[in-house]
Amino acid sequence: MNTTICAISTASGQGAIAVIRVSGPQAIEICDKVFVSTIPNKKLSIVKPNTVHYGSIFDGKQLIDEVLVSVFKAPHSFTGENSVEIACHGSQYIQQQILQLLVKNGAELAQAGEFTMRAFSNGKMDLSQAEAIIDLITASSAASHKIALQQMRGGFSNELVKLRDDLLTFVSLIELELDFSEEEVEFANRAQLKELIQGIIAKLSRLADSFSLGNAIKNGIPVAIVGETNVGKSTLLNLLLNEEKAIVSDIHGTTRDSIEDTVVINGITFRFIDTAGIRQTTDVVENLGIKRTYLIIEQAEIVLFLVDATKGVDIIKSQILHIKELLQGKKLVLVCNKSDLLTSTQLKALGDTDFDLVNNKILISASLGTNSEQLQKILIDSAHMSEINDQEVIVSNVRHYEALVKALAAIKRVEAGLKDNIAGDLLSQDIRECMFYLGEITGSIGTEEVLGSIFSRFCIGK
Amino acid sequence: MNTTICAISTASGQGAIAVIRVSGPQAIEICDKVFVSTIPNKKLSIVKPNTVHYGSIFDGKQLIDEVLVSVFKAPHSFTGENSVEIACHGSQYIQQQILQLLVKNGAELAQAGEFTMRAFSNGKMDLSQAEAIIDLITASSAASHKIALQQMRGGFSNELVKLRDDLLTFVSLIELELDFSEEEVEFANRAQLKELIQGIIAKLSRLADSFSLGNAIKNGIPVAIVGETNVGKSTLLNLLLNEEKAIVSDIHGTTRDSIEDTVVINGITFRFIDTAGIRQTTDVVENLGIKRTYLIIEQAEIVLFLVDATKGVDIIKSQILHIKELLQGKKLVLVCNKSDLLTSTQLKALGDTDFDLVNNKILISASLGTNSEQLQKILIDSAHMSEINDQEVIVSNVRHYEALVKALAAIKRVEAGLKDNIAGDLLSQDIRECMFYLGEITGSIGTEEVLGSIFSRFCIGK
Repeated sequence: MNTTICAISTASGQGAIAVIRVSGPQAIEICDKVFVSTIPNKKLSIVKPNTVHYGSIFDGKQLIDEVLVSVFKAPHSFTGENSVEIACHGSQYIQQQILQLLVKNGAELAQAGEFTMRAFSNGKMDLSQAEAIIDLITASSAASHKIALQQMRGGFSNELVKLRDDLLTFVSLIELELDFSEEEVEFANRAQLKELIQGIIAKLSRLADSFSLGNAIKNGIPVAIVGETNVGKSTLLNLLLNEEKAIVSDIHGTTRDSIEDTVVINGITFRFIDTAGIRQTTDVVENLGIKRTYLIIEQAEIVLFLVDATKGVDIIKSQILHIKELLQGKKLVLVCNKSDLLTSTQLKALGDTDFDLVNNKILISASLGTNSEQLQKILIDSAHMSEINDQEVIVSNVRHYEALVKALAAIKRVEAGLKDNIAGDLLSQDIRECMFYLGEITGSIGTEEVLGSIFSRFCIGK
Repeated sequence: MNTTICAISTASGQGAIAVIRVSGPQAIEICDKVFVSTIPNKKLSIVKPNTVHYGSIFDGKQLIDEVLVSVFKAPHSFTGENSVEIACHGSQYIQQQILQLLVKNGAELAQAGEFTMRAFSNGKMDLSQAEAIIDLITASSAASHKIALQQMRGGFSNELVKLRDDLLTFVSLIELELDFSEEEVEFANRAQLKELIQGIIAKLSRLADSFSLGNAIKNGIPVAIVGETNVGKSTLLNLLLNEEKAIVSDIHGTTRDSIEDTVVINGITFRFIDTAGIRQTTDVVENLGIKRTYLIIEQAEIVLFLVDATKGVDIIKSQILHIKELLQGKKLVLVCNKSDLLTSTQLKALGDTDFDLVNNKILISASLGTNSEQLQKILIDSAHMSEINDQEVIVSNVRHYEALVKALAAIKRVEAGLKDNIAGDLLSQDIRECMFYLGEITGSIGTEEVLGSIFSRFCIGK
């Protein structure tokens, strides 16, 4: 932290301009060694903070570039340290030359995330906010952008801090009781504590529960495309991917053997997983590919069950029954393909039939693209993204989720302990554990503050 | 020019930060509509120029990002207009959102180069300086970076302006004579004019001559790799390309059928052109591939003539003789490959022989990599880049070169006309033409200034 770091902060490659960041105790001094203002004798060390200056970068007598330099002074910078941002011409050659020059003059090349790490170390943000910056930069949909932004701005942290503060007050009182154990005082009102704990359990449960939504927002809502071979699954996938010219990419997920593609529809990321075809044979379970398909269905939130509409209602019903035990808790969308080949009688029969387990039914022609917009609408409705409101905190980070689950387990032990009227030191231990896991999320773990809180509040000179 | 333009100015893709530029009469007002400072009631329209402000970008009530905004006021900005630079988080989603928001609030998406075009239109730089910015951004070697930077800083423009000023003085006097033609005065001293014209011819010639160097610096010094088939040309090329982990790329040049690769060695770009092998047959000229090889040799500055050293001195001599009429004005480097297979007697024979036309001789083993550093040194020496000195202007832009050639032709006509004592109006026409072409380079064409100069200088109330 005594070092001064530098890095190219803009995307790599050639652009009109590029920005090089310098941060650390020597940031301004190092830049003063290489920057010459167009105004004689103007040094960066004497300019006001938050100002921009035009001039040149020199390596000795060798001119490197004409640049704009912004100066920030501790603690009013992103990192909380003295910082300089050099906006140079966006040639890769120039970017490298300036970076090398800064290193020659005493700066060090920054590690990945080191600027944000310093911001965290200097108390400019907590750990979950720092993590949100990465999410924000990689966010590719409106929904993932929104939750990352809220987390970065401390929405999540604020909830956690409030929860910890409540717990801190009570644990302080309980631990104070321990100090006065001979006198059998009860500083911490057990009824109030119970109420508080129940409130915290409700909040932590809500946060932990929000993770499945948050994860779906961040990584895409898993949609399994299921159906017999040659029923048009790949055509459907291409249709969904091509219709929206949004970010489409392969995801290397847990399901290594199936093809995944994400597509953003109306600001929501869907992760489509194409599966091996299901054959209707009696030895179906032995088939490895189909086993994998079953696994994908289990992981999916939405199942697009694609059938050949020309096969008729009965066959479609039996196909659905075939996987019915996998469909619990899933949104099942029955997609009847090849609608263009149906007679009006067949169309009516399909339209009139109520299929068990099916949440939505749609007739399409994947090859002609018929009804693809309606299918997208069904997907958006099935995603239930309208549930997100602007104020609600949604957890999208698996580390946070795991900490929340552990915190929840600890606080549930406190609830049980209160019911059983167990000793204060045991309660205290579980409350501390809950606080520890909450603190792990924001990066402020450490039980010293519990002690510190006791002494500062009561200051009884003991 | 009444519009306000915006664009992402940093390289495309995902980075830690990205910069969006806004420029035009409404730049600050448009940004004020979407930017909310962390300090209440601080509007960008009231802040001091050249200051940086922290705050948020909002689309109505919808938060888009937390950003740093730099404010510049006309004429003290790159474009000479009011300008704002928004440094946002480097997610492509955010960049697009902010750009769309700016457009929604009245900005227009900038055309390619439009910021620089505005800088030119507003007199912040001339045309050759504007062109240099592109060269600077794409410069990938120390030498090309240096000439682009010098041109951007007006080194070239200054020379041209000086030449035009000199010409302007004289043409003004000559045209004044025309006004007083009845009185047979001679305001313009013919001897002085002759001297001036000769000076200008010398300067323009030097500038035009510098183009072959400037072009070589910018696009790479053309090096033809010539030799019989299977003598190791491709191995040599790979050796040269791999040794230096610098920018290597295919160039789609004029010679469409040969493979080109550029490599930067010691800050100098070399453009290696691999050629079809030359066979020693009598029907050689009929062979199309070999004809092409001849063409490449003609275009090259340096010829790496690769021979199989084991073939012996006599065969090598005859191979050189075979292409001797192509070698005029070229640096011929004889590269004797397969040195590892030679006996000490053969080595001595090669070392002792003076080959006609050969500027440098080197023994290598392309497959073992022997002597590749020495070969690089020979290339650097042959490139004569040490000729470039810091002050000297080097022309690297073909448009400038063509204008210089035309200006030179015109001024040579003036020289001839002075010798033949031709009439003032004819002289004036050629001087004007020379000035016109010089002005074309800097973008300040127009004969009005010649007239303007007469009236302002002499102001004789006629």
